[in-house]
Amino acid sequence: MTHDMPLTLTALQDAFSGGATPSDIVREVYRRIDAVNDPAIFIHLRPMEDVIAEADALPARSAEQPLWGVPFVAKDNIDVAGIQTTAACPAYAYTPEQDAFVVAKLRAAGALVIGKTNLDQFATGLVGVRSPYGVPRNAIDPDIVPGGSSSGSGVAVGHGLVTFSLGTDTAGSGRVPAALNNIVGLKPSLGALSATGVVPACRTLDTISIFATNVTDAFTAFQVACAEDVEDAYSKPITAGHVQPSPPSLAIGVPDAASRVFFGDDVQAASFEASLAKLTALGARIVELDFSPFYAVAEMLYEGAWVAERYTVVEDLMRDQPDALHPTTAKIIGAAEQLSAADAFRGMYRLKDLERAARDTMAGVDMLCVPTIPTFYSTADLDADPVTPNSNLGTYTNFVNLLDMCGIAVPSDLRRDGRPGSVTLLAPSGRDANIASVAAAFADETIADMLAQATDEEIALAVCGAHMSGMALNHELTSRGGRLLKATRTAPRYRLYALAGGPPQRPGLLRIEKGSHIDLEVWALPKTAVGGFLEGIPAPLSIGTVELESGAKAHGFLVETTGVQGADDITHLGGWRQYQALQHVQVPEAAD
Amino acid sequence: MTHDMPLTLTALQDAFSGGATPSDIVREVYRRIDAVNDPAIFIHLRPMEDVIAEADALPARSAEQPLWGVPFVAKDNIDVAGIQTTAACPAYAYTPEQDAFVVAKLRAAGALVIGKTNLDQFATGLVGVRSPYGVPRNAIDPDIVPGGSSSGSGVAVGHGLVTFSLGTDTAGSGRVPAALNNIVGLKPSLGALSATGVVPACRTLDTISIFATNVTDAFTAFQVACAEDVEDAYSKPITAGHVQPSPPSLAIGVPDAASRVFFGDDVQAASFEASLAKLTALGARIVELDFSPFYAVAEMLYEGAWVAERYTVVEDLMRDQPDALHPTTAKIIGAAEQLSAADAFRGMYRLKDLERAARDTMAGVDMLCVPTIPTFYSTADLDADPVTPNSNLGTYTNFVNLLDMCGIAVPSDLRRDGRPGSVTLLAPSGRDANIASVAAAFADETIADMLAQATDEEIALAVCGAHMSGMALNHELTSRGGRLLKATRTAPRYRLYALAGGPPQRPGLLRIEKGSHIDLEVWALPKTAVGGFLEGIPAPLSIGTVELESGAKAHGFLVETTGVQGADDITHLGGWRQYQALQHVQVPEAAD
Repeated sequence: MTHDMPLTLTALQDAFSGGATPSDIVREVYRRIDAVNDPAIFIHLRPMEDVIAEADALPARSAEQPLWGVPFVAKDNIDVAGIQTTAACPAYAYTPEQDAFVVAKLRAAGALVIGKTNLDQFATGLVGVRSPYGVPRNAIDPDIVPGGSSSGSGVAVGHGLVTFSLGTDTAGSGRVPAALNNIVGLKPSLGALSATGVVPACRTLDTISIFATNVTDAFTAFQVACAEDVEDAYSKPITAGHVQPSPPSLAIGVPDAASRVFFGDDVQAASFEASLAKLTALGARIVELDFSPFYAVAEMLYEGAWVAERYTVVEDLMRDQPDALHPTTAKIIGAAEQLSAADAFRGMYRLKDLERAARDTMAGVDMLCVPTIPTFYSTADLDADPVTPNSNLGTYTNFVNLLDMCGIAVPSDLRRDGRPGSVTLLAPSGRDANIASVAAAFADETIADMLAQATDEEIALAVCGAHMSGMALNHELTSRGGRLLKATRTAPRYRLYALAGGPPQRPGLLRIEKGSHIDLEVWALPKTAVGGFLEGIPAPLSIGTVELESGAKAHGFLVETTGVQGADDITHLGGWRQYQALQHVQVPEAAD
Repeated sequence: MTHDMPLTLTALQDAFSGGATPSDIVREVYRRIDAVNDPAIFIHLRPMEDVIAEADALPARSAEQPLWGVPFVAKDNIDVAGIQTTAACPAYAYTPEQDAFVVAKLRAAGALVIGKTNLDQFATGLVGVRSPYGVPRNAIDPDIVPGGSSSGSGVAVGHGLVTFSLGTDTAGSGRVPAALNNIVGLKPSLGALSATGVVPACRTLDTISIFATNVTDAFTAFQVACAEDVEDAYSKPITAGHVQPSPPSLAIGVPDAASRVFFGDDVQAASFEASLAKLTALGARIVELDFSPFYAVAEMLYEGAWVAERYTVVEDLMRDQPDALHPTTAKIIGAAEQLSAADAFRGMYRLKDLERAARDTMAGVDMLCVPTIPTFYSTADLDADPVTPNSNLGTYTNFVNLLDMCGIAVPSDLRRDGRPGSVTLLAPSGRDANIASVAAAFADETIADMLAQATDEEIALAVCGAHMSGMALNHELTSRGGRLLKATRTAPRYRLYALAGGPPQRPGLLRIEKGSHIDLEVWALPKTAVGGFLEGIPAPLSIGTVELESGAKAHGFLVETTGVQGADDITHLGGWRQYQALQHVQVPEAAD
């Protein structure tokens, strides 16, 4: 292990396989923390001996613990048992007896918590300067703000101190620091990660978020943490899914020219254009959209009634100890005192109308891509005006949780001035894996082959004809959420026929005692989509069981024996693709 | 047509088939209105000539217009083009240019609107006495209140003046008048019926409701009106479904002894017990539940923040014309002036917690059954105390829309004192057809055979073995929401085999050129459930296409030709049921 080794999951696995121990990693983490020497990152740093003792007590390394020996930090509005939770407000502090639900999940998977990180007080802000515990220095450029509210968690990962960190995200606190520190910020669908043991900001809009240096690491932590929690009424049964090669043809909605907001930062505008060019090169189709409905939603977050949610958290404190809050935080949250219940409902009605407008806007695209931030601000800018730069930073983030979307911020190429570039991919709730998959492709990450088998929500289906990749009926699988698992062959016990009729022409796969290998593809299709798929399958085809070359079995297409009478036996070609290729180069012979 | 003919859909169809015209029906409606002589039922009654002109202008009777010539009335918070909408507040009145979305749907289906009915002002109340347009007399017993807020619509159907009527329901306004006037009150899932053209009460909790004298009529109007409306952000894509014979074994949750509230009315308590006995006799399993979570939700409706939704509707009016509101209404809605936005969010958090508790309570049952009202009140009771009897009437209704459930109130046998009995069936959103089906069975209604074919959400599946009714694998269909369409036979082109292996023993159906008829059953299975079902189908079985005796085709079970080698040919028995019967009366012979 070297001092410049990245603390990615892959690097850690290699180090552990090479003989390093978790306590070696822990010592390296503390060495790096010392080297960075920025005490404002942490509100509480655990004594190294405590973490080493915990590391030494881990069970033997096994697949049961996918985060075995992996160091992380948590924003100080998330409980870690026995350590004060402050939400960056000393007067609010309490010492929890239990880990937050998510922290418990991560630790059960072998992860080691190093400390609690600084934040904009009560997670109110996108800048990272609103804390009595100081301002963490941006990991890339000390002149610019660290970003917030998850400032310490963003900077810690930006410096490579830990593998991942937990933030929270209501307005963009899990994405803006990612853009400012050149890292990945995964903001899950609302309800995917439990809020038990988290200090609320806006309880209806909050989620824990995850920072890491790459998509795969962030998503792995997400998979570990994602589970329904019966103790949190806002928790939902969301399936994490898997990062996988993204489909070749995606429609990605982006702000049109009139909707692009950079506050005069032409370098950022150029950076975004370059990112869209890269997405196009990856096979995506860019669709320009009028973002007005999204911006109208964004305005409601601080100017509308939702600030009253923050007020419910601090109402007693503001009344009993009016000086306990940071003055900017107090001013923002105190505005809720003027809002009536009728105002709250009027806000919800307006949001409901805008939700529909936003849905209409997104109707033709698979996901959105926006700049994570419109421009950069320095700490001096914030000293001069503590509110406007903060509001501007939320241009592309504030609407996301109000619309119940998931998002992931991912670094793009550095801007031409050397500052970090970043885009955020956004999609409706539950599509976390989809946007992470595109983000991984965008970040040139190699995706491990996680495709070998269908999930519990899918059924594996062997197709040997026009449903195969690139062929006439393949859309019947892809439009239903199907994904290719593998291309293989049958066991040597089949014959293949070209059936009469069409277009499209269809093959028939018939099991016999002694036959041939026939090429096929195994697809995973969501179980809920099988009925609609089956509906379109005509006689003499059926879905039965096909034996693969490996001896494994999968559900797949068969033909009735009576259905092949008069059909062409094309077994000798070995597959439908070969037959189709011949059809395109020669005049078809009449079947006899 | 006679003066005592009920204006049910069936009776109207018979009358039309016998030569009556829609204008004959309209004249009879106005004759009955005159005979009942209760001007407080209507806020606006259309001139008879206008309705007759509309009736005469209907296109020829056809299946395109399922409500052809059917008279109905609408509560006066629902727009009918060209007629003032008052919400029972003259100062609020406006004249809409367009029909409400739902009214337009009903009229397009041939229904004839007769007038606009009285209500508790701004649909605030369950009693029917809070209106400047007088108090409609209860249709059964003039001493008791008519019920509200849909007072005129409930009484109009109670008197048999029209086939159905539209109410609205926020707290129970579509159910309480049904109980008090001995009729059916169908309260759809929120969002099933558009709110475009409806004066809001609590916009997040409102729905149009339907009164009729029987379940089938109410549900038919619901099917016509149910459609997503892009103009109403709270509209949802809910499928109405069909009333059909209810499954033989349902678990129905009811309040346990400690949760039953009758305010000392032992006759009502006995009536409810009798209703549960009837449900048991119909094959239902009664499950006693602790209703505390539901009552805790109910308390939030008027004591919590939702009254602020009503305030958003009348805020300007209360400020500019403080005397324009009914004093009780003004007092109730005015309470919202004391509620903050923080109160509103605290209410939502509490509701979210209670939602989960309610869901847990309902986990083991298919639906709930409650008394629609706990007891009866007279108009004199309301004069003495305008609030408490109103609150009490909402005991079993107030929680329903807050929990996003659908409900249907249906008459039970008359109480032993001759007053009407009523129960309400309740289920989670989207199960309108399920509860209506049970309500129809409870009301001894004959259900037309609407089972001949699968719906768009289902796939028809022919089964010829252990999946048939009463056999070993039938639960694989029923547990997935499958329902039997019909028992029939194949075309004479199949052979049936008893395959080796099991238990359970499985048959194989093989198509040949010249074969026999084989008995089978056609089931409808929800498309979303097909994947899970297919997953359990092993080789050599498959799901392909089976030709039925009628020549129609259905997806169904087949066997691979290679799979029948060594199996018993049982074609001569004509079906699997016959084979199984033989197995149980004789020692099985070894297959050879």
